[in-house]
Amino acid sequence: MDRSKEWVMNEIEKISHFGKGPRGITRLAFSETAAGAQKYVISLMEEVGLTITIDQIGNIIGRLEGKDESLPAVATGSHLDTVPDGGKYDGVIGVIGGLVAISRLKAKGKLTHPLELIIFACEESSRFGCATVGSKAMAGLANISEWRKAKDQAGLSFAEAIKQQQLDIERIGEAVRPAEEIKAFVELHIEQGRVLEKEEKKIGIVETIAAPTRLKIKVEGVAAHSGSTPMEERRDALVSASMIILAIHEIGLEQSKYGTVTTVGMLNVYPGAINVIPGVVEMWVDIRGTNHESTIECLQDIKDAISTIAEGQEVGASIMLLSAEKPVTMNKDIMSLIKKVCVEKRVPHQMIHSRAGHDAMNLAYLAPTGMIFVPSQNGVSHNGEEHTEIDEIMSGIDVLTETLLQLAK
Amino acid sequence: MDRSKEWVMNEIEKISHFGKGPRGITRLAFSETAAGAQKYVISLMEEVGLTITIDQIGNIIGRLEGKDESLPAVATGSHLDTVPDGGKYDGVIGVIGGLVAISRLKAKGKLTHPLELIIFACEESSRFGCATVGSKAMAGLANISEWRKAKDQAGLSFAEAIKQQQLDIERIGEAVRPAEEIKAFVELHIEQGRVLEKEEKKIGIVETIAAPTRLKIKVEGVAAHSGSTPMEERRDALVSASMIILAIHEIGLEQSKYGTVTTVGMLNVYPGAINVIPGVVEMWVDIRGTNHESTIECLQDIKDAISTIAEGQEVGASIMLLSAEKPVTMNKDIMSLIKKVCVEKRVPHQMIHSRAGHDAMNLAYLAPTGMIFVPSQNGVSHNGEEHTEIDEIMSGIDVLTETLLQLAK
Repeated sequence: MDRSKEWVMNEIEKISHFGKGPRGITRLAFSETAAGAQKYVISLMEEVGLTITIDQIGNIIGRLEGKDESLPAVATGSHLDTVPDGGKYDGVIGVIGGLVAISRLKAKGKLTHPLELIIFACEESSRFGCATVGSKAMAGLANISEWRKAKDQAGLSFAEAIKQQQLDIERIGEAVRPAEEIKAFVELHIEQGRVLEKEEKKIGIVETIAAPTRLKIKVEGVAAHSGSTPMEERRDALVSASMIILAIHEIGLEQSKYGTVTTVGMLNVYPGAINVIPGVVEMWVDIRGTNHESTIECLQDIKDAISTIAEGQEVGASIMLLSAEKPVTMNKDIMSLIKKVCVEKRVPHQMIHSRAGHDAMNLAYLAPTGMIFVPSQNGVSHNGEEHTEIDEIMSGIDVLTETLLQLAK
Repeated sequence: MDRSKEWVMNEIEKISHFGKGPRGITRLAFSETAAGAQKYVISLMEEVGLTITIDQIGNIIGRLEGKDESLPAVATGSHLDTVPDGGKYDGVIGVIGGLVAISRLKAKGKLTHPLELIIFACEESSRFGCATVGSKAMAGLANISEWRKAKDQAGLSFAEAIKQQQLDIERIGEAVRPAEEIKAFVELHIEQGRVLEKEEKKIGIVETIAAPTRLKIKVEGVAAHSGSTPMEERRDALVSASMIILAIHEIGLEQSKYGTVTTVGMLNVYPGAINVIPGVVEMWVDIRGTNHESTIECLQDIKDAISTIAEGQEVGASIMLLSAEKPVTMNKDIMSLIKKVCVEKRVPHQMIHSRAGHDAMNLAYLAPTGMIFVPSQNGVSHNGEEHTEIDEIMSGIDVLTETLLQLAK
């Protein structure tokens, strides 16, 4: 079968039907919808002749042997899970693009090294608050004690959710792979920003990946009757939370000169009734940056702002640090190789920082790793409006194919 | 059976076990938990010898005939449903207090008029956003078209929820009672404020009941990736919503000199993920006051503030007016009668405004109506910490009993 531009468009479209809703695609990690998409993609992998294994965290590994089975594999891949109301391209183009690349290389006859396509489990943090779970487990970076505590919004624990997918939290350790098994890892992904679009480049060669710092903030006021409690006597947790949200936004604007960004993406009000003054508000903060010092300063400023607001409003406020990872730098040789391929193919390209986290940042602990970005229209991502032109995707697949060939030949 | 102070304490405690949780009592309208409490209270009503009927909205009417069955009834009552994490006393003391009063009057021998104890359905707006549903239906004030659209947070429609309680939305009209059937209505309730406590009075004779004005506000920004979207390019719906919440709070503080209060008690963020900039925020506003002009001004100021913020932040904002009712004045003769009873019994009392809504405000359209308030410790209500001393409840029951006797004898 010819895996042409039409085939790629068609398959991206087909995958988007798993979890399609009016505002976007919802294919949360370890859900039945995500499992449906995986099953479908496994069938495509089998058509290409890949041998499938699924590890103990649910990563799917499709392998094509090379001339020497004992040599380490050259791997590519990405993820199929999405945020709620997400887009068609985030993760999916790295899976479909990787499959097309391997299929083309197979057509050239056996390479020296084995090739692998990996579909990582639970890349998005939307469901359980923990991101790139599958690649962390594979790279020996699993934080099982944190995952054990994680629950989704319906109150289902991480352990129960993976059990529904026939996985066992006690056996996640078995997903770890020795560094000797992988020669290199290259991930194709949409940029999710507008740098390439503005600079009119087709390919971004990722230099660093910003890892998120994440906080949970709990504001405790006093729940009371919304009609009979005078304004002056209130300790409204949502009023204080609103002040905190605006302070976090201001701090993000101040630090944006260093490329650092701050977001409050989730917020719950308790008890949450039209006739009750909010007693408790829980909210989650996401801080990203490739400049580590700016991230640290941002975190400190947020903590100070929360203390000041809580004191002034006479409410309680607690801060829990959920994660604080350092930015990860991609492998110099892989960056040079991707650059060389771009030059040879005359594809307009540039070096770029990733402000979003990716599975590649964990694989970097296991093997020399690189990332190839293609443009996102208007920089829109994590939204049903996410779009990348098919010609740009094909150009990303061409660069990926040649990079994998050079590594595996 | 002697329905003594101990009996009252004991029954309030028993009822509080229906829906008891760590932070308070959750007995939402038309829930199985509320039905459990109702069933229990019906058994108490039957012990007193009341004849039970349940109307087409789920109001429970317990009747004790007088000497002349054709005369209109003197009625009392309140509600058993609660807000999420509510208190033991709100509604319950009017039900248990009314039962004790009727039981005491029965012991005196047949009165001229029949007596009725009414447990109104769905007094709290917490579940469906519409309040005092049962008394509205009884008074011919039902807003069926609004109720038809109402859903709870789990997405269950009002019609389906009442169907689960064997009620039919098409038959709500049958719950209307002709004005000729009721001679007077008197409701015993906790104050839910701290006026009586501050003034060291045991009884509040309600003059007016403030009816809530309620809004639903929808803010529409753009959902985007929390890592890769620069701060300057965001249209974060939660940041704009936070500005609106603070503006609404400021407007409430300005109008508080007229006794008007404003609250945002419920808020939902979409898509609601740690790694996605909020695209849509929905929130609900509750405005209360006994000064109608102040309420109108408040509403206009809120609308103006929302327009200004939406324009400045380049987000969409829509406002839906859910309800806008006028304050209701209690019947002068009933107020005088309650006052006379308080003077005779030497109970420290005063006239008072109710900033919370009550079933009595609807019954006032049907019959001469009055309300008796007892103190709330620290003014706390709609909270598990809600408390009223048993001696204060008993004194409210004494005043209620004598008032009903004077009306029915």
